[in-house]
Amino acid sequence: MSIQQAIDELRNRLGDRLSTRDADRAPKAHSESWVAAPPPDAVVWPEDAAEVAMIVRVAAEHGCPVIGWGTGTSLEGHALAPRGGISVDFARMDRLIAVNAEDMDCVVQPGITRSALNAQLRDTGLFFPVDPGADASLGGMAATRASGTTAVRYGTMRDNVIALQAVLGTGAAIRAGSRARKTASGYDLTALLVGSEGTLGLITELTLRLHGQPEAISAGVCAFPGIGPAVDTVIETIQMGIPMARIEFVDAVTARAVNGHSGAGLAEAPHLLVEFHGSPAGVAEQAERFGEIVVEQGGGPFRWSARTEERTALWRMRHQAYYACLALRPGATAVVTDICVPIARLAEAVEETAADIAASPIEGPIVGHVGDGNFHAALLIEPGNAAELEAAKALADRMAERALRMGGTVTGEHGIGMGKLGFMEAEHGQAAWQAMGAIKRALDPAGILNPGKLVPGN
Amino acid sequence: MSIQQAIDELRNRLGDRLSTRDADRAPKAHSESWVAAPPPDAVVWPEDAAEVAMIVRVAAEHGCPVIGWGTGTSLEGHALAPRGGISVDFARMDRLIAVNAEDMDCVVQPGITRSALNAQLRDTGLFFPVDPGADASLGGMAATRASGTTAVRYGTMRDNVIALQAVLGTGAAIRAGSRARKTASGYDLTALLVGSEGTLGLITELTLRLHGQPEAISAGVCAFPGIGPAVDTVIETIQMGIPMARIEFVDAVTARAVNGHSGAGLAEAPHLLVEFHGSPAGVAEQAERFGEIVVEQGGGPFRWSARTEERTALWRMRHQAYYACLALRPGATAVVTDICVPIARLAEAVEETAADIAASPIEGPIVGHVGDGNFHAALLIEPGNAAELEAAKALADRMAERALRMGGTVTGEHGIGMGKLGFMEAEHGQAAWQAMGAIKRALDPAGILNPGKLVPGN
Repeated sequence: MSIQQAIDELRNRLGDRLSTRDADRAPKAHSESWVAAPPPDAVVWPEDAAEVAMIVRVAAEHGCPVIGWGTGTSLEGHALAPRGGISVDFARMDRLIAVNAEDMDCVVQPGITRSALNAQLRDTGLFFPVDPGADASLGGMAATRASGTTAVRYGTMRDNVIALQAVLGTGAAIRAGSRARKTASGYDLTALLVGSEGTLGLITELTLRLHGQPEAISAGVCAFPGIGPAVDTVIETIQMGIPMARIEFVDAVTARAVNGHSGAGLAEAPHLLVEFHGSPAGVAEQAERFGEIVVEQGGGPFRWSARTEERTALWRMRHQAYYACLALRPGATAVVTDICVPIARLAEAVEETAADIAASPIEGPIVGHVGDGNFHAALLIEPGNAAELEAAKALADRMAERALRMGGTVTGEHGIGMGKLGFMEAEHGQAAWQAMGAIKRALDPAGILNPGKLVPGN
Repeated sequence: MSIQQAIDELRNRLGDRLSTRDADRAPKAHSESWVAAPPPDAVVWPEDAAEVAMIVRVAAEHGCPVIGWGTGTSLEGHALAPRGGISVDFARMDRLIAVNAEDMDCVVQPGITRSALNAQLRDTGLFFPVDPGADASLGGMAATRASGTTAVRYGTMRDNVIALQAVLGTGAAIRAGSRARKTASGYDLTALLVGSEGTLGLITELTLRLHGQPEAISAGVCAFPGIGPAVDTVIETIQMGIPMARIEFVDAVTARAVNGHSGAGLAEAPHLLVEFHGSPAGVAEQAERFGEIVVEQGGGPFRWSARTEERTALWRMRHQAYYACLALRPGATAVVTDICVPIARLAEAVEETAADIAASPIEGPIVGHVGDGNFHAALLIEPGNAAELEAAKALADRMAERALRMGGTVTGEHGIGMGKLGFMEAEHGQAAWQAMGAIKRALDPAGILNPGKLVPGN
């Protein structure tokens, strides 16, 4: 069997850094979502790019699937192995290779996590801003084009990966991009690999844009009489050019959940949570101008503070919102899904979604990175209850259809993985999706890289 | 002959919107640089995307080259037709289709120029920031990944094209991206087409990110004792998080040139020209903090103003620097070239380049978008003087080699075209350049789109 031949050959080369033991394979069948697949046939732990290239070459020769693995925090099953094969765990490639403080960039191996990276950057005055919530690996974040609460100010992985190295499906090791801040030289292979979900290449090194740790930070929270005024506040704030570092929406259900979980004492209404980065005078001015817009829109009062403890408490509350929501239904698990629409359609998209959830048997708090037009629903279901799972998936599907109807995308940040493959043709159209397939075949002619994902007939 | 068959068939379909007259073909052999090629065999003026798709399908059937044409302001010969074929002039596809003010985006046809676009946006409170100097078409700017003076704040075309439509070499019409501010759905075909120089597809529609016209603007200029302190000022300003809208470097030669041209009265020394966008209090604070850094670095005094007339005069001087430099040598023409390096290497790159030029028989003022690490030399030569042209090209080649040695790119914004094709393998490495070729063959199997450019063996 071809997978077995690849495993035998790789075992000769990697020794005990290849495992076929159940205890090593089982975690690679785990996903933080309803998406399921059997474990891969083997797990390998490469230590450098040359080993990754060797693994891919051997696998290509034998037609053996190869799937990258970071921390396994995907919500859509990106790193699962539905056709078996070899899971490439980047845990041993987790170094910060270089920090170029004057150029405000750094070079990392793909297995480093964002918290480990920021811990090592702490004394440089710089930080890496992309924060998807989970303590994901940078390789996984790049492969899935991750973003999160700070994307409204600092961009997503698309904006913050300036160069990379990868092994294509042919086994060829490529460099893409450089440490220059911009280029007009050739195809943007960096952007092509970012978000390709491991179907074009395995990323072996990343050059990341860093940002200065802000001199001052102000943050605050305010309630609104409805989602419409909250979104209008966001639109006006952006149009005024007030640079928000974060602007998060939580709905009334989530407000109730975090009250129950951490005694936050929020009104049971939609809220915005915001943060500003800049000079001390700058963040004070920004917070005050934002507060004026809030009042105009009928919200507020807007309470803000530049004190670290209050800010930390605010964002701890936001980060724990998921667990607070789970606690709304003791013992529940959640189908978590996200969509992203043009901001002018956001209020309508959230309201339609909330109404759809309310008409279902399922409870589903909504939170969102509202400055990007991106929001999530956590659809609470009883573990093992097939009817509830189907109902939740149907709600998620209708969210995706709603996003497309409104000119948006079926996922702002969670990605396609196995969960949303069925929407690719609807979102991109047949011609563009086929073009993605042609690119896939050009860079992975043996079809071994993360097969069954993202492109047609793969 | 196959090109003739394509022309005959297209003439039947397009009537007098296809021309083989010398007067129509000759301008398509013009380039704003030393790069030369014969005229194309025919010029067509499509009026919509369906016609573009028809043109490409007919051309693919007959193996006839197809080259897009915007305004012909390329400096590297992107739009020339070295293998003959058909020049597709987008002059009749120049409409602003939609402005979505709340979402801060707009939809345009590729033939619209940036000044026409901004004129039509004037009353919306929004503007499109990318400014490459020339009044280029947006289609051309996207195809070449253009940038310019404002990229340090607003990004390049990579950052400001959020969706597009294009006709691939197969004749397939694709949509890429959406009006959502971010997505994690599928390959980033938008980024792949941006900067592909017409070798993968002809862009038929663009969705552009717009920005709010700044409430207040401050601008100013200051001299430095050398390029080192000027660059260190830029680095420190970026690290402090002071958001510059523009930060331009001009060398002592350029300062002398603009003095002679417009009586600017600058010291004959390196200068920085800067602009800040924000609230009235914000731009005042930014200018003052910048001024403090300038003094620390031994430069200055930094004179700044928020008055429109003074700012207009400053940027008029910068925009006319090219003509001022040409006037340094009456009757001269210029070989204009650009490179981009990590900012920490910028002073060294500029100094080495200046010394190399000084040791040559040619004068060559240097200006730069220094916040990006990008700079240009205008190498002044006598028209028709082959020895000087060779000397200038040798200087430009050494600049490109210098950029690569310093971890940069052979072009920050002018692109590859015909002028820098010889550097593609050196910059990207054989494996990545071959991967670009594989992508090209996947999307343009007949090899008809802008042949002879950008990819290997094309």
